[in-house]
Amino acid sequence: MRQDPFKPAARVAGQRQDVWTIVNEAATASPVQPIVNMGQGFFGYNPPEFVLDAARDALSKVECNQYSPTKGRPRLKKAIAEAYSPLFGRTLDPDKEVTITTGANEGMLSAFMAFLEQGDEVIVFEPFFDQYISNIEMPGGKVVFVPLHPPKDGATKTTSAGEWTLDMKVLEAAITDKTRMIVLNSPHNPIGKVFTRQEMQAIGDLCVKHNIIILSDEVYDRLYYVPFTRVATLSPEIANLTLTVGSGGKNFYCTGWRVGWLVGPEHMIKYVSAAHTRICYSSVSPLQEATAVAFEQAESHNFWDESKAEMKGKIDRFTQVFDELGLPYSEPEGGYFVLVNLAKVKLPEDYDFPAHVANRPRDFKLSWFCIMELGVAAIPPTEFFTDANAHLAEDWLRFAVCKNDDVLEKAKERLRGLKKYIQ
Amino acid sequence: MRQDPFKPAARVAGQRQDVWTIVNEAATASPVQPIVNMGQGFFGYNPPEFVLDAARDALSKVECNQYSPTKGRPRLKKAIAEAYSPLFGRTLDPDKEVTITTGANEGMLSAFMAFLEQGDEVIVFEPFFDQYISNIEMPGGKVVFVPLHPPKDGATKTTSAGEWTLDMKVLEAAITDKTRMIVLNSPHNPIGKVFTRQEMQAIGDLCVKHNIIILSDEVYDRLYYVPFTRVATLSPEIANLTLTVGSGGKNFYCTGWRVGWLVGPEHMIKYVSAAHTRICYSSVSPLQEATAVAFEQAESHNFWDESKAEMKGKIDRFTQVFDELGLPYSEPEGGYFVLVNLAKVKLPEDYDFPAHVANRPRDFKLSWFCIMELGVAAIPPTEFFTDANAHLAEDWLRFAVCKNDDVLEKAKERLRGLKKYIQ
Repeated sequence: MRQDPFKPAARVAGQRQDVWTIVNEAATASPVQPIVNMGQGFFGYNPPEFVLDAARDALSKVECNQYSPTKGRPRLKKAIAEAYSPLFGRTLDPDKEVTITTGANEGMLSAFMAFLEQGDEVIVFEPFFDQYISNIEMPGGKVVFVPLHPPKDGATKTTSAGEWTLDMKVLEAAITDKTRMIVLNSPHNPIGKVFTRQEMQAIGDLCVKHNIIILSDEVYDRLYYVPFTRVATLSPEIANLTLTVGSGGKNFYCTGWRVGWLVGPEHMIKYVSAAHTRICYSSVSPLQEATAVAFEQAESHNFWDESKAEMKGKIDRFTQVFDELGLPYSEPEGGYFVLVNLAKVKLPEDYDFPAHVANRPRDFKLSWFCIMELGVAAIPPTEFFTDANAHLAEDWLRFAVCKNDDVLEKAKERLRGLKKYIQ
Repeated sequence: MRQDPFKPAARVAGQRQDVWTIVNEAATASPVQPIVNMGQGFFGYNPPEFVLDAARDALSKVECNQYSPTKGRPRLKKAIAEAYSPLFGRTLDPDKEVTITTGANEGMLSAFMAFLEQGDEVIVFEPFFDQYISNIEMPGGKVVFVPLHPPKDGATKTTSAGEWTLDMKVLEAAITDKTRMIVLNSPHNPIGKVFTRQEMQAIGDLCVKHNIIILSDEVYDRLYYVPFTRVATLSPEIANLTLTVGSGGKNFYCTGWRVGWLVGPEHMIKYVSAAHTRICYSSVSPLQEATAVAFEQAESHNFWDESKAEMKGKIDRFTQVFDELGLPYSEPEGGYFVLVNLAKVKLPEDYDFPAHVANRPRDFKLSWFCIMELGVAAIPPTEFFTDANAHLAEDWLRFAVCKNDDVLEKAKERLRGLKKYIQ
């Protein structure tokens, strides 16, 4: 008989405290209340009314309150196929090339579950969205990291997120005969980089050459401020091995709705659907229907253009304070995260950090300090690096600007308090 | 380089066509339209208005449209703790002993992911809810089956679902030093059996003796027509190793909402939460809030009593037709599924069944025949047995009665067409 019946499986056992818990606990403990929370990337405002109306309507329909088909509600698959076909430059089959998942997160897990066997390798760029790692490891995959490098002068002047670079030689060297998949993310979280057509082409060609499935996380695909290239559009050969991930939560300001999707060729989508069925059975039905209506009506409400202009306005509004303070930042090319370099901020030498913060890189201390002293929460990005490469990001903090303008102004007002710590 | 980059992982590769696909395709192809669908256990009607109103209200709140905490919205955890504390006879801690999942299905997967390592064994009774199997196998678990036996005279007279029996000696013999968990399900799908206190005590004692975690699927926990025993209430030692699974979809008639939960001791719930975070990150936020309100207001609307009385009424209304026809059935003690024995129905010898039905047990042929000839869909229950034990159920069909009364009457009218095939 086992001695400890409650011993957890290795996949959930004892990891160090995650960044979200640390930041949220600090936010609760801060003497400055209420905190201005620019940490997690949830929206500080509601989806547009036409989307909410659609959700309320769906709740009145019996079939929308009951199980969705496992692959998704037909109306949503159709709406997505119609919305993406012009973006992909080909006509997508809603029944064979689109599948609905419980948010982009479970969609990516479904893709890994569909193709990874024990020991298969998946290439992930650093910094990475932290859920990728457990989602790859759960089906037995091994993550192989390739770092993105910050601009060399990122600590002294404001640069473009596009100046974060990938060394293609390092990427190619990371490929082995066990490499099964690569995860791309553009626009990128947390960097805000939109990979150029040339970068995407080079990565795509490499994947074709080595028969590697591309899992392209494009959840910020409607928020780009420079030309945006979808890797699946570069060639039929690349499209043939690309799964594109989308998110209703990111597109329509409802991160709590858990409606995501994968788009790609039938020979991969069918296995993603099969994995999704085994994980969640089906996804939330009334909010799928509402997301379908959101896609159907987005153009007529001029939603995509307004959404993009509004978010770019928030980035510009917020970053003013760093121009004022002389703190350099990485100007986003897409998405809603701003990385700010705080190398110039001198933390008081005798400041009393708790042990679980003191033993992490400097960005955790910067984050803790801003929460406790200024009442503004931001995320330390070394959480999204391996220990070996954490030094690349130890002077940066990630701010989510998807908040109301008055919240952004309050954050700016508080962040001016950094002035006395800047050398 | 691999020859086939799209080779799926074994966990999703080539299984035979599942029962839902077969029945749904037959329903579409039937000459009798519209079909009366008593196959899948979705409700033919909406959640009560007070629950829908709560969902509509939640959609107006910014925080309800954004990410829920990974363990669930505080209001829902509190509502569940308060609703279950009197049922469990102890005060549940909403933060440590309750965790919210994306439906009961993903909740059970989270429990298996939390505790199973490669090769660990899980005991499952036959018949089983089909998702159990893939959910156990995904984290590397091995299913060990123990059959429930139908009443010996179930083919000749109407019996009680309680007469399906478990051989405790067979159960004990199935335990090995690799047995990590057991799945219980009461009220049982598809049988409708509510395990007696004595049965539960015997199973619970065995689990304490052998240090086996009990995963108790109690999603039909508000629909019982004989005394219902929750295994977690039998002793502190049993409670200490029991995780109880619940479902908002089953409780409040909204199977498409994907709100489920697990209740149990902190030393297990914390790992279930950790697994859930890695699978779905968080669950659907506005419908969690609505489910919280549903629990808060259920008693004042007398919902639980009415819900149970209404469902029992549907069972009684529907089974009249089998009394008329002289076809015996298994009278449910709980839930909303009725197993009917069609041994007396003689299928025409020259009937043309398609190959994928012809090569399955007789219940698949009965199901196909009822869909095509009568326009009534029901589920062949051998799908929920291993091949070795499928013979136990080959004369039965499962009907879901959670449909409007006019639908039930229409079904009865059509099922009277069986008369000429009864010997």
